[in-house]
Amino acid sequence: MSIPGQMPVVGMVGGGQLARMTQQAAIGLGVTLRVLARSPQESAARVCADVRIGEHTSLEDLRAFAKGCDVVTWDHEHVPSEHIRALEAEGVACLPGSAALLHAQDKFVMRERLSAAGAPCPPYAKVPADAPLAALEEFAERAGWPLVVKATRGGYDGKGLWIVKDLGPESVELIGRLVDQGVDLMVEQHVPFRRELAALVARSPYGQGAAYPVVETVQRDGICHEVIAPAPDLDDDLAAEAQRLALDIAERLGVVGLLAVEMFEVDGGVVVNELAMRPHNSGHWTIEGARTSQFEQHLRAVLNLPLGSTEPTARYTVMANLLGGDDPDIYPRYIHVMAHDPAVKVHFYGKEVRPGRKIGHVTALGDDLDEVRERARHAADYLRWGPETKERS
Amino acid sequence: MSIPGQMPVVGMVGGGQLARMTQQAAIGLGVTLRVLARSPQESAARVCADVRIGEHTSLEDLRAFAKGCDVVTWDHEHVPSEHIRALEAEGVACLPGSAALLHAQDKFVMRERLSAAGAPCPPYAKVPADAPLAALEEFAERAGWPLVVKATRGGYDGKGLWIVKDLGPESVELIGRLVDQGVDLMVEQHVPFRRELAALVARSPYGQGAAYPVVETVQRDGICHEVIAPAPDLDDDLAAEAQRLALDIAERLGVVGLLAVEMFEVDGGVVVNELAMRPHNSGHWTIEGARTSQFEQHLRAVLNLPLGSTEPTARYTVMANLLGGDDPDIYPRYIHVMAHDPAVKVHFYGKEVRPGRKIGHVTALGDDLDEVRERARHAADYLRWGPETKERS
Repeated sequence: MSIPGQMPVVGMVGGGQLARMTQQAAIGLGVTLRVLARSPQESAARVCADVRIGEHTSLEDLRAFAKGCDVVTWDHEHVPSEHIRALEAEGVACLPGSAALLHAQDKFVMRERLSAAGAPCPPYAKVPADAPLAALEEFAERAGWPLVVKATRGGYDGKGLWIVKDLGPESVELIGRLVDQGVDLMVEQHVPFRRELAALVARSPYGQGAAYPVVETVQRDGICHEVIAPAPDLDDDLAAEAQRLALDIAERLGVVGLLAVEMFEVDGGVVVNELAMRPHNSGHWTIEGARTSQFEQHLRAVLNLPLGSTEPTARYTVMANLLGGDDPDIYPRYIHVMAHDPAVKVHFYGKEVRPGRKIGHVTALGDDLDEVRERARHAADYLRWGPETKERS
Repeated sequence: MSIPGQMPVVGMVGGGQLARMTQQAAIGLGVTLRVLARSPQESAARVCADVRIGEHTSLEDLRAFAKGCDVVTWDHEHVPSEHIRALEAEGVACLPGSAALLHAQDKFVMRERLSAAGAPCPPYAKVPADAPLAALEEFAERAGWPLVVKATRGGYDGKGLWIVKDLGPESVELIGRLVDQGVDLMVEQHVPFRRELAALVARSPYGQGAAYPVVETVQRDGICHEVIAPAPDLDDDLAAEAQRLALDIAERLGVVGLLAVEMFEVDGGVVVNELAMRPHNSGHWTIEGARTSQFEQHLRAVLNLPLGSTEPTARYTVMANLLGGDDPDIYPRYIHVMAHDPAVKVHFYGKEVRPGRKIGHVTALGDDLDEVRERARHAADYLRWGPETKERS
């Protein structure tokens, strides 16, 4: 920005699909997106001109990456807090900053902070490594079974959350294994929810806020399967309450950029589940379904540009995640899906197809929710399974 | 496409803003866009991962570029026909092919072909280099003054078209200079048009066609200033006729990809002005204003993928071109424009700001045409002139 007429450089740490889709927005805005990827084959590295190869766990790599960036932001939560603090101490503009981001990195810190602030959270407790079973037993007496055991940071073997039904031998073995591996654990009530919602907001350093319509997220096998925008038949007051809650959390935590608040809808209100401070799977629908995509909004927020309109472009937008099927040769199925529905939008992440891997998403929009859901579902299912769709899904 | 699950590579010759915006579409489709640019500073080269530096006038550079591309297509019309024919002879899939593209490269060839096919064209004639003034005189006797003198290919000093009012000393000097420079000239009637329209269509190798709503293009000082989609108050029958004409031309010429037909609206119909076989300035509005952007559509067409829906997303979409002003430090004005109108979309092309240079465009959409035009205009004018907008524009 120091050179007249030159546009800023935003550095995004991580080369996944969120950075990839952010590049589409950056091209339009005229902003340069620099990506720190672990290899040139990563999703975003395949589509950006300014790619640096390095490890997000290496302070040296982060330092070299940040040089020349006007702002550094994150494609994921796995950058060590101490590295972000070190960059901040050296004058790098990290947004969201380490203090805010910690609440998306450490679930126990998040619970402590939000509970203290009066945000609706489920009962929770630390699970000490020296007496985990006793702690769970005691917690279950208060909250009832089943319990949700979570790794406070990261996870183990790709998982960060386990539903524990009782303290039978299987659970005892699981908890023992997690503790042996040094995974820090916490426990939460298994909230008896009606459905899952997500409230996506943006906040700029000036404190300007913008809220997207609250969406319903449909999980299957622990993976976000479908997002419906707006959440159908959601009470107007509750929708406004969820948006206010997300904006309030963003302000209290000093978030700059996007904040996605995953929530449970329960009798009489909502309960906070998880936080993410970046573009989020629950916001992919905004590419076609909102005047400003979440990716553009995140860039605007971290650059302290005025935020864009979050107005929806259609009555309903449905996003279905696209998982890899058994047959990696997806192109013939792609042709079928395009021919079947000229208005459905398929987004591929440039990833090799592997069974169960999230390789893209599909968006449909229109006035009739059932029809829109069916269109998005058909496209995602067909891309995964082909003509066997009906038998498999 | 031979490797299971791998997506095709589209090579685009030319590194301008059309290739740049095509990259946004390619990222979503999961298609790799490879760009042949003259320097890493070109508009598209700044945002693509797969950039080859070379000259579009060098057959060797084109050959090396085409290797590994599933299809080669064009960001502009300046690739020599003989080079495209040579690539085709070597088995490279060039789309649109040399035979079709010639009609977008040579205005005289286009007139001969379209007139023979019965498409509405203005009276025209060749201007022989050995007796140019006599030819103009004779043509004016039939068609009246003023005349439109055109370079059949390329142009001279950045211009390809001159309005000649008479054969006074100024005109004599101009024609003499053009002939001396070896510019091949033709002459056309100065069509007494009501307004200018453009019909954008796509055609796939299978022969599938898709037509966008016909738009009005507003020129100022010979530069496209504003595009209104759809063309306001255009007679339904005339709109359908213009779409049919464009689809018919695409089929007759064997165009694969996009075809933009610039037209004059005259009493009783339309007259063809120019052809372009690539994404076109008159179609930039489709990024926000149509279900499928022209850039996505071009990729789908040249890859022989089923074409996408051309349905508009709003009642009116207005695109205003953004020209550089005297002050290259555009960023503060960008902030103002975003704050002023959170729903307007600014697209920057990554070009240095120079007075009068096309550096981006602005899109607004909505139900009230006057309001939408005013919003697009304000944004483009303010970005160019800043607070002096009112005095300058």
